[in-house]
Amino acid sequence: MSPKLAVLGTGLIGGSIALGARAARPEVVVAGHDVDAAALSAAVESGAITEGHLSPEHAVSGAEFVVVCVPIDAMPATLRRVAAAVPDDAIVTDVGSAKRSLVEEGERLFGGRFVGGHPMAGSERHGIAAADPRLFEGAWWILTPTEATSEHAYSAVTSFVARLGATPVAVDPSTHDALVARLSHVPQLTASALVEVAIAAGDREALLGLAAGGFRDVTRIASSNPDLWVGILRANRVAVLEALEGLRGRLGEVSSMVAEGRWEQLRVFLERARSARLGLFAKPDFDGAPVTLSLLVPDRPGLLAEVTTAAGRLGANIEDLRIVHSTEGGRGRLELVVTGEERAEILAAALEVLGHHVERMPPGVEDYG
Amino acid sequence: MSPKLAVLGTGLIGGSIALGARAARPEVVVAGHDVDAAALSAAVESGAITEGHLSPEHAVSGAEFVVVCVPIDAMPATLRRVAAAVPDDAIVTDVGSAKRSLVEEGERLFGGRFVGGHPMAGSERHGIAAADPRLFEGAWWILTPTEATSEHAYSAVTSFVARLGATPVAVDPSTHDALVARLSHVPQLTASALVEVAIAAGDREALLGLAAGGFRDVTRIASSNPDLWVGILRANRVAVLEALEGLRGRLGEVSSMVAEGRWEQLRVFLERARSARLGLFAKPDFDGAPVTLSLLVPDRPGLLAEVTTAAGRLGANIEDLRIVHSTEGGRGRLELVVTGEERAEILAAALEVLGHHVERMPPGVEDYG
Repeated sequence: MSPKLAVLGTGLIGGSIALGARAARPEVVVAGHDVDAAALSAAVESGAITEGHLSPEHAVSGAEFVVVCVPIDAMPATLRRVAAAVPDDAIVTDVGSAKRSLVEEGERLFGGRFVGGHPMAGSERHGIAAADPRLFEGAWWILTPTEATSEHAYSAVTSFVARLGATPVAVDPSTHDALVARLSHVPQLTASALVEVAIAAGDREALLGLAAGGFRDVTRIASSNPDLWVGILRANRVAVLEALEGLRGRLGEVSSMVAEGRWEQLRVFLERARSARLGLFAKPDFDGAPVTLSLLVPDRPGLLAEVTTAAGRLGANIEDLRIVHSTEGGRGRLELVVTGEERAEILAAALEVLGHHVERMPPGVEDYG
Repeated sequence: MSPKLAVLGTGLIGGSIALGARAARPEVVVAGHDVDAAALSAAVESGAITEGHLSPEHAVSGAEFVVVCVPIDAMPATLRRVAAAVPDDAIVTDVGSAKRSLVEEGERLFGGRFVGGHPMAGSERHGIAAADPRLFEGAWWILTPTEATSEHAYSAVTSFVARLGATPVAVDPSTHDALVARLSHVPQLTASALVEVAIAAGDREALLGLAAGGFRDVTRIASSNPDLWVGILRANRVAVLEALEGLRGRLGEVSSMVAEGRWEQLRVFLERARSARLGLFAKPDFDGAPVTLSLLVPDRPGLLAEVTTAAGRLGANIEDLRIVHSTEGGRGRLELVVTGEERAEILAAALEVLGHHVERMPPGVEDYG
């Protein structure tokens, strides 16, 4: 008999896992479950799953490996519902973005055969149509084994994840939750709060004129899907509260520095954050210091191609790129980050030959007052 | 006799103003002042100023129009120092990024002949070498006239700014300060605080693996120049404190919603911020809804050129572009925002012909759990 994998929830993540698993091991039967019949049919038609079940119990029946990919709010109930139907020797894992309480529930139901997981790739984009067997290639896949986890189960989940092209990394469930609270969940809430504070201050026209690229960057994630985020924040409530209080405390200290005119202390605070930020995203294979080139450009089709073609011809890999539209339209500023001062200089010279006026900025000089 | 313009502070902003003013009216004498003799010589050599003075009093002597572009901390002292030397009928303006207390000082010294200003272009990048006569083209230039401002002075400053290619916009000094506190100064402090809260939580490797594009965006400005920012925050102390308290209060309310499980209220908060953020940066000349195309791409020179050339050929103007490097290096995700669903579809099809796997996302679907 063919080995059987059960994928509960056939959206983007579940669908991508199913496609990747079938690509790696074509002999595997993939039983999919979704509460949405149309989504389930689409998953069958796309070839991601070999059989579709509206009942999760039927999907897990006889499976050796179960991956739970339903929305995070639905995970505990789904785990409880399939508990009796999952074979006694099957391994169960999930992809939820908060881990501690879910791992507790999983271990209560499945003992050492449950291993929590969280792939750091993809997104909560919609449905099977966006599924991609290569979604996890090169990405980290956090696993959260505990003392209760069986060695066999951990090793099976590790191999499964590696076959999808991801790099499995073990992190304690509480540490995972604290990290994502600080790196994702609280920044999300903060971006939304910054937008609210800004719009409370004036009319749209004035805001638009005064909001520079910095505000645009800081608040970009505020346009994310609220329903999705309520589910995530709810699932990671404890860690989110702790990180939020940490941020509020830090902002309180900053507020005191400003109120009491402790400017040197404020400078040290900004300097420490600056070093940390610059260090955090330095790629391990950096081949030179990052240099930002800034160009005032017409806002027209083809312009980006002209600039990036020049970079490609010169072998300069563009590490980051930012387009700052002028508020009037028609013009904008293009900022390119390339590594290596020599390469940056050659690219700048080439762009000047093309008629652009290019400013060179060393790292960290990106300051709009 | 030729008309005389005095520019105090010949860095990027002062130098760009001087170059722009000379380009618009070549007959004008531009007297420059800087405390840095080398910077002053460079400004003369670049042709930005026609005469250089280490003494600000000499620079303003006989001038009809004085623009103060020294660092914001040095502005009040510079205004006081030149007060007696500025001719009685000369008009004085400045470019400081905080206005209320500076305008008070300017009016105390020069009465209705002082008009506060703040160009919303450029940056505090280094020196005359980066100066550009077109720096202000298409940008807003906030002016902060008060009841005390003479009509003649306001009209002269408005014309001066318009000749540089900027659009003058009048805002009350306190409103200006409140707006920049909320749109720039507090986001700056918040980005730094978010970095500090994040690095307190774990080792660099775990942080790097878990930090997605959202964190990168939110904290980008944390790598700005601390010395510059201390000057700005100090100058806008009152408004910054008020905006900081506003943010802390809002985060406190959010914290209560999470603590007390008021999820529907949290959803409404996120939804309101989402609508506001999406509305804020919608360009007035939008010719269709923004669609994001997302590609998994190799991290190599030439790739961006391939993608943007395809866009240019098809007449699709790339409104925004984001590069999300994978933590492992070698691969990344490229997100392009184009307007108009039809154009987005044509571009996506062309990129698929080139062998890319393209995901289409409607606006606001940009959610990393």
